[in-house]
Amino acid sequence: MELKLITSNRHKFEEMNQKLKGVVDLSLYNQAYPEIQADTALDIARNSLTTLVPLIDGNFCIEDSGISVEALKGFPGPYSSYVYRTIGWQGILDLMAQNPQRNATFVSVIGLYWKGDIHMFQGSCEGTLTFEGKGDQGFGFDPIFVPDGHQLTFAELDMETKNQVSHRSRSTQLLADFLRK
Amino acid sequence: MELKLITSNRHKFEEMNQKLKGVVDLSLYNQAYPEIQADTALDIARNSLTTLVPLIDGNFCIEDSGISVEALKGFPGPYSSYVYRTIGWQGILDLMAQNPQRNATFVSVIGLYWKGDIHMFQGSCEGTLTFEGKGDQGFGFDPIFVPDGHQLTFAELDMETKNQVSHRSRSTQLLADFLRK
Repeated sequence: MELKLITSNRHKFEEMNQKLKGVVDLSLYNQAYPEIQADTALDIARNSLTTLVPLIDGNFCIEDSGISVEALKGFPGPYSSYVYRTIGWQGILDLMAQNPQRNATFVSVIGLYWKGDIHMFQGSCEGTLTFEGKGDQGFGFDPIFVPDGHQLTFAELDMETKNQVSHRSRSTQLLADFLRK
Repeated sequence: MELKLITSNRHKFEEMNQKLKGVVDLSLYNQAYPEIQADTALDIARNSLTTLVPLIDGNFCIEDSGISVEALKGFPGPYSSYVYRTIGWQGILDLMAQNPQRNATFVSVIGLYWKGDIHMFQGSCEGTLTFEGKGDQGFGFDPIFVPDGHQLTFAELDMETKNQVSHRSRSTQLLADFLRK
């Protein structure tokens, strides 16, 4: 079966495709669409999916992810992409400079349109924020996030290890489980 | 003539109504609607207006505003409301702690649906960020913003003075000029 991933982010495509090989024939499909403002990635993705249904032929999915810092009331959450483009991960460290409470959660939501129905899959990864950026792999807020059970940031971990624990690998795994049935 | 202002914010209604008395009969109309994510308030308001046209009977308008900090690449801009709810104005001061370049701009966009056509009005107010919050009037980021030509923050200025220079008073003035024609 074929499945279109609606994104312009090749990195995202490759990360998901790795987990979906042999399960579904994933293809990258570039189609711009508006995202609503909402306080959860789940609400945003569900709305985007509904917007896309009349525009896309056949089965498709989208993925949206973000990081929520507990001490900042969930900020930057669903606006992680905009926040990264403006104040970057250094901005998050500045906001957290004096703060010992460093819990943070990466969340990935996949919205799937499959044979006429909508399905949502959410994966998360808990961890802590560093006090300085470390590592040069990955992207976004990876250099300041250490997943629970590890000593290195997402940007220091090799791709294979990251893909075992990351929020996106977990949401993709749920998608794979669904598609295998 | 009657004009509905779609908002749940009574403060916004009263500020605008003050400038529109004798021009149009403004009423507060509470109708939830989704806002898209976009990098300018203008794009967001235009989209919201289009979304609302089939839902509202008669002429209506919406107002959206935000503050853009030059040294933070425009952050928090169109996401000012979410950013205020999470990191607050203290968060902006934390991000700007070591920064001597304190230019900021408040922007207000009004989208008007009038006799079948869409019109947009934008007002802005330039100023500088303080190094600490001052004053208890107004709302949002008012305590850390001093408009050009003044020594006090929006939260310290009396309402009448604020209403002479504020971004929202300027967009509302443009709306009033249009309606008077």
